[in-house]
Amino acid sequence: MYRLVISFLLLLSPVILKANDGYKLWLQYLPFENKAVADYYQDYLGNITLVGKSPTHEVIRRELEIAIEGFFKGTITPSIADHNEYGLIWIAKSEDLSGTFKAAIGEKSKEIKDDGYLIKYSQGKIVVTANSDIGLLYGTFALLKKIQTREKLEGMEILENPKIQLRLLNHWDNLNRTVERGYAGFSIWNWHRLPHHIDQQYIDYARANASIGINGTSVTNVNANALVLTPEYLEKAAALADAFRPYGIKIYLTARFNAPMILDSLPTADPLDLQVQAWWKKKAEEIYSYIPDFGGFLVKADSEGQPGPHNYGRTQAEGANTLADAVKPFGGIVMWRAFVYNEKTPTDRIKQAYDEFKPLDGKFRDNVIVQVKNGPLDFQPREPFHPLFGSMPETPLMMEFQITKEYLGQESHWVNLATMWEEVLQSDTYAKGVGSKVINVLDGSLHGYKLTGMAGVSNIGTDRNWTGHHTGQADWYAFGKLAWNPESHIEEIIGDWLKMTYSNDPDFVNPAKNIALNSYETLVNYMTPLGLHHIMARSHHWGPGPWVTGGGRDDWTATYYHKADKKAIGFDRTESGSNALAQYTPEWKNVWGDPETTPMAFLLWFHRVSWDKKLSTGNSLWDEMALRYQQGVEGARWMQNEWSKLEGKIDTERFTHISSFLNIQATEAEWWRDSCLLYFGQFSGMPLPKGVEKPKHDLQYYLNFKRNFVPGI
Amino acid sequence: MYRLVISFLLLLSPVILKANDGYKLWLQYLPFENKAVADYYQDYLGNITLVGKSPTHEVIRRELEIAIEGFFKGTITPSIADHNEYGLIWIAKSEDLSGTFKAAIGEKSKEIKDDGYLIKYSQGKIVVTANSDIGLLYGTFALLKKIQTREKLEGMEILENPKIQLRLLNHWDNLNRTVERGYAGFSIWNWHRLPHHIDQQYIDYARANASIGINGTSVTNVNANALVLTPEYLEKAAALADAFRPYGIKIYLTARFNAPMILDSLPTADPLDLQVQAWWKKKAEEIYSYIPDFGGFLVKADSEGQPGPHNYGRTQAEGANTLADAVKPFGGIVMWRAFVYNEKTPTDRIKQAYDEFKPLDGKFRDNVIVQVKNGPLDFQPREPFHPLFGSMPETPLMMEFQITKEYLGQESHWVNLATMWEEVLQSDTYAKGVGSKVINVLDGSLHGYKLTGMAGVSNIGTDRNWTGHHTGQADWYAFGKLAWNPESHIEEIIGDWLKMTYSNDPDFVNPAKNIALNSYETLVNYMTPLGLHHIMARSHHWGPGPWVTGGGRDDWTATYYHKADKKAIGFDRTESGSNALAQYTPEWKNVWGDPETTPMAFLLWFHRVSWDKKLSTGNSLWDEMALRYQQGVEGARWMQNEWSKLEGKIDTERFTHISSFLNIQATEAEWWRDSCLLYFGQFSGMPLPKGVEKPKHDLQYYLNFKRNFVPGI
Repeated sequence: MYRLVISFLLLLSPVILKANDGYKLWLQYLPFENKAVADYYQDYLGNITLVGKSPTHEVIRRELEIAIEGFFKGTITPSIADHNEYGLIWIAKSEDLSGTFKAAIGEKSKEIKDDGYLIKYSQGKIVVTANSDIGLLYGTFALLKKIQTREKLEGMEILENPKIQLRLLNHWDNLNRTVERGYAGFSIWNWHRLPHHIDQQYIDYARANASIGINGTSVTNVNANALVLTPEYLEKAAALADAFRPYGIKIYLTARFNAPMILDSLPTADPLDLQVQAWWKKKAEEIYSYIPDFGGFLVKADSEGQPGPHNYGRTQAEGANTLADAVKPFGGIVMWRAFVYNEKTPTDRIKQAYDEFKPLDGKFRDNVIVQVKNGPLDFQPREPFHPLFGSMPETPLMMEFQITKEYLGQESHWVNLATMWEEVLQSDTYAKGVGSKVINVLDGSLHGYKLTGMAGVSNIGTDRNWTGHHTGQADWYAFGKLAWNPESHIEEIIGDWLKMTYSNDPDFVNPAKNIALNSYETLVNYMTPLGLHHIMARSHHWGPGPWVTGGGRDDWTATYYHKADKKAIGFDRTESGSNALAQYTPEWKNVWGDPETTPMAFLLWFHRVSWDKKLSTGNSLWDEMALRYQQGVEGARWMQNEWSKLEGKIDTERFTHISSFLNIQATEAEWWRDSCLLYFGQFSGMPLPKGVEKPKHDLQYYLNFKRNFVPGI
Repeated sequence: MYRLVISFLLLLSPVILKANDGYKLWLQYLPFENKAVADYYQDYLGNITLVGKSPTHEVIRRELEIAIEGFFKGTITPSIADHNEYGLIWIAKSEDLSGTFKAAIGEKSKEIKDDGYLIKYSQGKIVVTANSDIGLLYGTFALLKKIQTREKLEGMEILENPKIQLRLLNHWDNLNRTVERGYAGFSIWNWHRLPHHIDQQYIDYARANASIGINGTSVTNVNANALVLTPEYLEKAAALADAFRPYGIKIYLTARFNAPMILDSLPTADPLDLQVQAWWKKKAEEIYSYIPDFGGFLVKADSEGQPGPHNYGRTQAEGANTLADAVKPFGGIVMWRAFVYNEKTPTDRIKQAYDEFKPLDGKFRDNVIVQVKNGPLDFQPREPFHPLFGSMPETPLMMEFQITKEYLGQESHWVNLATMWEEVLQSDTYAKGVGSKVINVLDGSLHGYKLTGMAGVSNIGTDRNWTGHHTGQADWYAFGKLAWNPESHIEEIIGDWLKMTYSNDPDFVNPAKNIALNSYETLVNYMTPLGLHHIMARSHHWGPGPWVTGGGRDDWTATYYHKADKKAIGFDRTESGSNALAQYTPEWKNVWGDPETTPMAFLLWFHRVSWDKKLSTGNSLWDEMALRYQQGVEGARWMQNEWSKLEGKIDTERFTHISSFLNIQATEAEWWRDSCLLYFGQFSGMPLPKGVEKPKHDLQYYLNFKRNFVPGI
């Protein structure tokens, strides 16, 4: 009778609530759609046994309670047993499994590695098992995901081991709570209230990250403030570390290279100076006294004003090794960023990281990993993979993706970053012949790296939905999934995310997925088609700025990169130009060395092409560019239109929020198209081809357009 | 049958949820506790008729839907009719009432004024009526409050007219989203996304304000940026105004006095310069073209670095009148702050506003209202009422309270500000003899003011609970209630707020109310007992700083105000001193002129008293001071302890949040006590009396204590 009543109500009450601010991310645990669905899962969720005791077990228990509360709209009280013969879901580490289950699982459990897990259906029961507490938590989240996406539990057998060891978020958060390149408000780290107040948001942050396998976080900006290494802040960081520990998330801090000078007035920060080395050792000791499982340092050195070993005529390896030696006794690591380039611009900026690091291969300590951006420039809408991937067999490299959309629409554009990331991850470097994909570099299989990692520059802020744009949550989610397994299918990732976050209704999920999957190419078209790059506005990087020139640093201007004149446009990076191409394997040199064989996506990245050059499409370069900008605008409008059809299928609040951002996106797509075509049209001198709309204003209007207090700087 | 089922479930499902971030403020619409309660209200809420059409009517309809969803946990679908003979709740403007109802209500409806409302029970039905759409919205909120607090509806008759016309929030929010003296994160105004994106939070802000009768908001800092008067920002402000309009909330902007020079390079901002006057007129015209019902300007001039009429040898009236003339044709007003004091400190700072404004009485245009802080200094934990109240019979004065707790614990102290406000509001100025209370000045009854107003400096920010400390919501709520009716009983206000926000369980409400009502005196004791003032840390004002001295501006130091030496402590403001006392009526001069008759709360505010002076308590001044500091600390611990007993009576999330802040408060109370007693003890040379705990550290420790990036500056 009681069960019947519940289901009756579930049927009656609409699943679609009017207000949902998105705070719960993909852990909405949306109510079951109807009686049948509820009944099906209730058999399992009503009979859970969780074996063992640890802070992580408490986290598991709490998560199950939250999930059950959500699934059943609070109509049943979760009850999770420690031991219960009748349990239909058993959650236990392999060492805690009873004989019956051990037998049922058999050899399979031996394949569990690290924090991996196994979920196996056997004789009417589901077993979630792992070798570690954290593995058990991951397994629980995986099972909950299956229920969130309404999959059948019978016959389930999932064995998942992480393919990458270090799965990290990098927060570019300053201690004053501004966020560099942050577009979702301000930093969620309220340093002033730490260590005394642990906000619920920190816990929910840890839950969200654990649910997608993220196991570390660097909480401070790479443009670093040395203060974070003082007791005042270490005490605060330790409180965060304590809060995150049960979720398997380690804390990392950014180290300012000249911290010994700033904090203790040492006369130098030379990494080979004995006093400096002693300073870092003592500092590491101090840090570990606060945070016994401190992860280590993330360092940006010799780049964009940050001090580094160059100041003392030392190499990046010498710099990294001094810090690495300091944390080594405690099991710490150093993530040393390869984003090093000279402020004097002696050569093509995109060549510099390779030139600097390639000769140092093998010269780094074994607890150093070099963190490399996906492309050789700086998170542009589209770049070829970074030539360091495949070029450092003796030095572990980790990937740095930018989840925050500095160059991809910032606040308000919907662009599914996983599409871009997949493009890079699946690129073949040919370092050891065909099949030497970036993925194989990252997972350690190509070169036998002992350390592997992937970092994502966080898009999280104080906005009520965490990420500003609701769809930014998908990028955070997808980053975690790809860090766990870079071979994951992005279509599945976005589909799962939509289901868990919004609705399992296929009439919502399929069209929304379609929008997401088309969003990346659309954005590239209206921003930087044909391999254009770095043509955004100065400093805040919001909106178009192909006219940006001068100002002291050539390699921070647009004209340096597009080099448009009356004859041609594009950066010649072949032998006749900067020869950046030489940093790639011969296979790529062949393809990218000739404009005829270069995919149009990278045409102007590698080549200088005359405006009237006929492309494979039959269009002149100018016409092709104009048509692509137009196509981008139309794509943005299509996204608007497709989304508008989904009204009523999800809650009004998030539907409206995304709608208004899609309006902004369509308007800004026009802004990009009109600005770029008016500007480049001055050089091409050619008319707009048929099908391309006339610009709304003249070029002067766009040149004059200026907004104050653009976020993120 | 259906009804039975619902109630059965309501009985079964616990009202106490585990997670509640407080975002819904006092509009939680908490589920009915049991079947009987639900049944009782369902008769009414299931039969609502709302007559009429307007954007505000849509707001009313939506609010009823939200409320019903909350009360019944989404188990019944709200249905609100336009016309329905069977309606048990009728919501209609007086002009829309049918004959039957008109008769039932009778003469009573003639007593409704402005945006007032009448709720009347008659023959089994409840009528909510008003003369304006906004009045109807206020009436609806009032009815919902009765249901939220589980009051009987039968026999109800409530007639409420606002006692004050202008009921405003003042946001000290900068355009870059930092908030001056903001301790709840950053500004909720996301200017970058405006005008295109209207966030749900703006709507919820308007709902919350309308629910307590607030009818205006000044959205920018009084330390003003002239940019807000440019088309770029006016377009954004207009979008906010459009969003707020259905809720009866007008937008006001802060005007930087030299805006004509900054924005249009005028050679002067002299208010008597014809070009300047023409500029303001044109600017007003422009503003009203964006915002037809723009409220007007709020101005801070000649104060703390802000430009003003002084720069041109003009009076505050001449400055205010130029702006007033500009907005007059459009129905706008100017709120001119009396917080004017000279950076050269020629005389006791607290005398300056009176000295400046009193001679100008009657010289302001009739659309100017002078905005006066509650006390003559600057929002200290305790000040006597401002001597301007009662001294400006020909010039309307409005109150400025500070809801954000710049000097009262900032982030993390629970202090019920309404207690302090009531103290000021109920003060008798004796301006026209006994019964000339500050309230009578503000509501216009004493001097026949045509304009009346009350402003509260907002404590709202991006924190998920809006106000940083959950109990800061109570201050926002109480401010609105007191602005509507300054005679409201604060015990009732805090009780209602607790019920609507947390629970109707008297075992929670009574003890929590008790904590709140004791919090103010507790804070004054551990911060500034016996009339001490301005002894906080420099610049950020967080924590004690009785040692603050030097630095260029005497009147920004602590030593200027406490004047402690080996003999005595306190500021002599009698005839033998600064004679600030002369600004008050003879009744107060008598009481405050003699240390023997001065209440201890203001002893050191008005007098210099020797350390060994015996007070009415039998203690020496030193002993009394030390005992009060100790009492404050004990009070903070008592609050901690009382709160801890309430565990399980409300949701875990808010319970825990408040607990951790109470821990911080108790620790900081000790910090205040120990710092101040160590510092002042140097002068008194006397030992701590029995019962006062020994300081944890020596004075040097407290002098050295320094924290970086303290919020709010």
